[in-house]
Amino acid sequence: MAKAPTAAILVIGDEILSGRTKDKNIGFIADTLTDIGLDLEEVRIVSDREEAIVEAVQALSGRYDFLFTSGGIGPTHDDITADSVAKALGVSIDVDQRAVDLLLPFWKARGIEPNESRLRMARIPQGATLIPNSVSAAPGFRIGNVFVMAGVPTIMQAMMDEVVKMLPASAPVLSVTIEAGRGEGDIAVPAADVQKEFPNVRIGSYPYHDGQRFTTRLVLRSRDAETLEAARAAMEAALSKL
Amino acid sequence: MAKAPTAAILVIGDEILSGRTKDKNIGFIADTLTDIGLDLEEVRIVSDREEAIVEAVQALSGRYDFLFTSGGIGPTHDDITADSVAKALGVSIDVDQRAVDLLLPFWKARGIEPNESRLRMARIPQGATLIPNSVSAAPGFRIGNVFVMAGVPTIMQAMMDEVVKMLPASAPVLSVTIEAGRGEGDIAVPAADVQKEFPNVRIGSYPYHDGQRFTTRLVLRSRDAETLEAARAAMEAALSKL
Repeated sequence: MAKAPTAAILVIGDEILSGRTKDKNIGFIADTLTDIGLDLEEVRIVSDREEAIVEAVQALSGRYDFLFTSGGIGPTHDDITADSVAKALGVSIDVDQRAVDLLLPFWKARGIEPNESRLRMARIPQGATLIPNSVSAAPGFRIGNVFVMAGVPTIMQAMMDEVVKMLPASAPVLSVTIEAGRGEGDIAVPAADVQKEFPNVRIGSYPYHDGQRFTTRLVLRSRDAETLEAARAAMEAALSKL
Repeated sequence: MAKAPTAAILVIGDEILSGRTKDKNIGFIADTLTDIGLDLEEVRIVSDREEAIVEAVQALSGRYDFLFTSGGIGPTHDDITADSVAKALGVSIDVDQRAVDLLLPFWKARGIEPNESRLRMARIPQGATLIPNSVSAAPGFRIGNVFVMAGVPTIMQAMMDEVVKMLPASAPVLSVTIEAGRGEGDIAVPAADVQKEFPNVRIGSYPYHDGQRFTTRLVLRSRDAETLEAARAAMEAALSKL
């Protein structure tokens, strides 16, 4: 089984770090990547400072096959993602006529005046492919292995629909969930034994409180259906002996 | 005004990266840090792999004044945070009698048998201070500038109550929110002007859809009440001229 492509997410925004805005994008992108078979290996959240964004983009785009960013592509002074990504990748950036051509008719239809601030949303790094925005026209973009999307969840989600079409198809990760009905301390030994027997299945153990007591959900993940089923049967057999 | 202490969060867990579990801890810790006046500068989420945890702990604890981790301190095979933190900081780790003394009476009162897996929860790096867990007894710990907490939100929150007592008091960040009542493209110029006039106030611009149209929330943040009030007045004056 070939290794799946790897991915990282970079969320950009002081409002997430201050706690004022609760992130909704990481979970959405994570779900989408799992659905299409990419392995999300790392997430970072950094502030709206150029050096923080540049460093994270370089680190994550260098290490993983794909990087997805969210936030900082609006028209205001704190929207510096596009310029920071260009700097990180060593390419120039300017107002892009393709983006202007998307924005002007959208604004005209709504009686919105173009101005210098709004045109900042048309700043696109040299060589980038635009990512359509069906909600508010201002596009995201792909440059190299970096996909730059908006931070507003509805817009990011619309962009992610487009991004998925640009990504390679891969074998999605299959998973089965087993409700162990016992605390982690009871199931730790059988879970570890089954993990050893099936090294290609990732077995996660997730304790939670069901309202009365702590119990455990075991999640088995693999790209191979047969291996997954064998591991599931082994785990259920082991749990039934407790 | 002295610079506030800086902080980072490290969330550890495959279940967050797969999207199966939606993180609830980042927002809670971020809110708490803002309340007590620490500057959260970076968040990372990594998987349950030793090398990923070790690298992130070293990077974040080296760069920021405090690091808060969440996840991976239970009794199962995928709970490797305590050992990974010990490795990252170059200290030894073993079953700690202080932790055992917290766990045994808790288990006894509930008819839970101690076993080798459960005793993994008493593995604490040499030299660490325990963080009490009022929910399920198994402690977190502080070692150096790293605070290691559980991933289950109720337990993490109980631990964070204790962690706050261990942290230095600092001037909290004050903030005011201004509903601009207009799109970002309209307010970008006045917002940038006020930002230039008040470099010590962080001005964030957060577009959102109010159900009918995109409008903007401006958030002004500072540790100094007078400066903040002056910036607020300047911003409202600038907006009233639009």
